[in-house]
Amino acid sequence: MKLLITIRFLGTGYCGWQKQKNCITVQEKMTEAAGMLFGFECDVTGCSRTDSGVHANMFCATVTAKGSDSINTTVPIDRIPRAFNNFLPEDIGVINAEWVENDFHPRYGAVGKEYEYLIFDRAERDPFMSGRSWHIPHGFSDSDIKNMNIAMSAVVGKHDFTSFMAQGSKIEDATRTVKYAYFEREGNIVRFRIAADGFLYNMVRIIVGTAVEVGEGKRSQNSISDIIAACDRKMAGRTAPACGLYLNKVFYNQAD
Amino acid sequence: MKLLITIRFLGTGYCGWQKQKNCITVQEKMTEAAGMLFGFECDVTGCSRTDSGVHANMFCATVTAKGSDSINTTVPIDRIPRAFNNFLPEDIGVINAEWVENDFHPRYGAVGKEYEYLIFDRAERDPFMSGRSWHIPHGFSDSDIKNMNIAMSAVVGKHDFTSFMAQGSKIEDATRTVKYAYFEREGNIVRFRIAADGFLYNMVRIIVGTAVEVGEGKRSQNSISDIIAACDRKMAGRTAPACGLYLNKVFYNQAD
Repeated sequence: MKLLITIRFLGTGYCGWQKQKNCITVQEKMTEAAGMLFGFECDVTGCSRTDSGVHANMFCATVTAKGSDSINTTVPIDRIPRAFNNFLPEDIGVINAEWVENDFHPRYGAVGKEYEYLIFDRAERDPFMSGRSWHIPHGFSDSDIKNMNIAMSAVVGKHDFTSFMAQGSKIEDATRTVKYAYFEREGNIVRFRIAADGFLYNMVRIIVGTAVEVGEGKRSQNSISDIIAACDRKMAGRTAPACGLYLNKVFYNQAD
Repeated sequence: MKLLITIRFLGTGYCGWQKQKNCITVQEKMTEAAGMLFGFECDVTGCSRTDSGVHANMFCATVTAKGSDSINTTVPIDRIPRAFNNFLPEDIGVINAEWVENDFHPRYGAVGKEYEYLIFDRAERDPFMSGRSWHIPHGFSDSDIKNMNIAMSAVVGKHDFTSFMAQGSKIEDATRTVKYAYFEREGNIVRFRIAADGFLYNMVRIIVGTAVEVGEGKRSQNSISDIIAACDRKMAGRTAPACGLYLNKVFYNQAD
């Protein structure tokens, strides 16, 4: 059996999930913690690569003995989250642990993901939202948000999202199916939620950056279909900063 | 005229408000920023000392030219918050600026303050609440919170709070009038709010620490009156950690 671990992390101090040279990553911290907890070297495999500075409200990873597709431990499953946390820095927290079959893969087994993006739009900055949101001081009216949501309705469905993919990405098929994509106000926060069967590199951040330009009146709320049809990154808007992005949910088939 | 500045700050990286040697404080950062903004040395006077690691949702300070009780500037008052923020680190933010009379004092002029204290009581830690709350993993039931509130009802009113003051504090009269003090659940957070005409050193943190012991069943919900009457710090509970405490509001007479 493999261990399936659910974690949350504040991405500010990390160069994303994936192990890298000369840069601290969440995978590295998780791998070190697993080794200390179980007393032998472990492999930790994540559900997604995330960019530097991106956060996760929910991120899934499997833990196995190094080079193996399973792990043996006498630590009871319900004690594993707190035991793990003893070896993790304060900005990473294990919130759940369960047993899954050896053939479970946290990335290829995922049938969908939900991301959240937070925009803080009060004029003056809020130190408590710094590094955890995109600060846009000019503010969005209800009508701006309505226009952004009209724009987002064109994103929903099955499309080739080449225009919303970072240039230089090596992807053969950029077709993805978006289930929902909408903005809603919650106090001083404009919250964006998007779910799809998969996401291209920088896709959420480019969609948000483009939608913000709609909200700012720089683009028409009816321009998205043409941007999608062009299959050209230059047609879409700027890439929203990483600090506002949260991986929010990972969906697996219940049978898994 | 003096400038009255309202700020918010995340206290994690600071040794509190008050300037100190060998330690970075919020007052120091504000004084540096004022100097850069106005082009001459300034005095920045706060409404309160705060402990190391304590946060502020609202903190008031006056800005004057060094050694003077007023300040002259051509910067329009509505531009001052953003101009100030250009010279401040991300964890301090000016949210308002207004003119007040030369005899206004942000500390002695305050007629009351409200503090907030956040307890995060889910079993597993939340990286997003780390440094911003007290993590108590065992959790509080509705009945526990009810008992804590029964205890808090004895704190409300005019009392000598010597038992809830850090030992060694040099205060002649420890009498303070508490207007309200209550806990309420908000999701995984147990939020405490307390307002009084003034607070003694560590008073809120000792009250919270004692109330938590009531919630944990270690003290009776009816024990607070005896603790107050004893005028002895040893009778009260532990001091709750600084990271959960927020100065939430400062009250001035409307005439000021």
